[in-house]
Amino acid sequence: MENREDKTLEILEAIHTRRSIRKYQDKEIPDEMIRTMLSAAMMAPSAGDERAWQFVVVTDQDKKEQITAVHPYVSMIAKAPLGILVCGDLTKEKYEGYWPQDCSAAMQNLLLAAHGIGLGAVWTGIYPMAERMEKFVSIFGLPDRIIPFGLAVVGWPAQSIPSKERFTQECVHYNKW
Amino acid sequence: MENREDKTLEILEAIHTRRSIRKYQDKEIPDEMIRTMLSAAMMAPSAGDERAWQFVVVTDQDKKEQITAVHPYVSMIAKAPLGILVCGDLTKEKYEGYWPQDCSAAMQNLLLAAHGIGLGAVWTGIYPMAERMEKFVSIFGLPDRIIPFGLAVVGWPAQSIPSKERFTQECVHYNKW
Repeated sequence: MENREDKTLEILEAIHTRRSIRKYQDKEIPDEMIRTMLSAAMMAPSAGDERAWQFVVVTDQDKKEQITAVHPYVSMIAKAPLGILVCGDLTKEKYEGYWPQDCSAAMQNLLLAAHGIGLGAVWTGIYPMAERMEKFVSIFGLPDRIIPFGLAVVGWPAQSIPSKERFTQECVHYNKW
Repeated sequence: MENREDKTLEILEAIHTRRSIRKYQDKEIPDEMIRTMLSAAMMAPSAGDERAWQFVVVTDQDKKEQITAVHPYVSMIAKAPLGILVCGDLTKEKYEGYWPQDCSAAMQNLLLAAHGIGLGAVWTGIYPMAERMEKFVSIFGLPDRIIPFGLAVVGWPAQSIPSKERFTQECVHYNKW
């Protein structure tokens, strides 16, 4: 699949065609595309604009192999060119307990940007599972108050997954339950 | 501002130009645009595809006034055509504790879709503030295991806020802290 950075997707199409991609081509991701994804992530809204996030770009093969040993659903990272570990930064907290929402919005922006420029990605969960969190702290040497939140695994897609409409009227209520 | 639904924004532009909009024109939002936002929300990824969310569309003026009395940062809803209350649905939980991430990703999709079709919106926080949550439960009659998570206030923008780049290299780390 070609680099789509200069003809990216329209917003609603991007939202509706983004799928979790777990198979990747054996091909590097250019630094400017990593920057595009991180920049999109950091444009997310956050509680009181606190931006309580940090990002660890993972390209080192040894780190990727270590991750596969501690997370049951991330074996594909061994063959992916890139992981991006999204962390909460409690030193930036203005509103207690909102940092996972900051990080989630950043992650969703990152995934949409990845899809928009022709990459494929999947959000794998870490927080709030204590044991999994401890292992990521250990692998990446995270200091106190930097919380491993979630890991995006990213690559050039080697699979195409059709989009399914998920809208259901059952989840919509009007003015009361 | 015109209805942009048939010429929406490109994904990266949408991500980079979305701002929190709190001033609105005195103008209704068509049902199909509400559907567009809800449909975008429901396309969000979720833990194990659990989709642990519910949405309450708030157009009733009395409900809006009640909200202004219980939330310190939502006075603008009294003059907004629309609120969308995003709730967690614990009955759908497959992975304990991930539902706020599901709801955050849905909320971010909703905000981007709103901006993409020419509306302005702002995410106001409810969860995890217990007192605020109790009041939303009461106003909307939410049953057990339906958790008020966050409220999007939406309208036709009566303000234009320039975008500021938020990328900072200080938040980027490579393979270790």
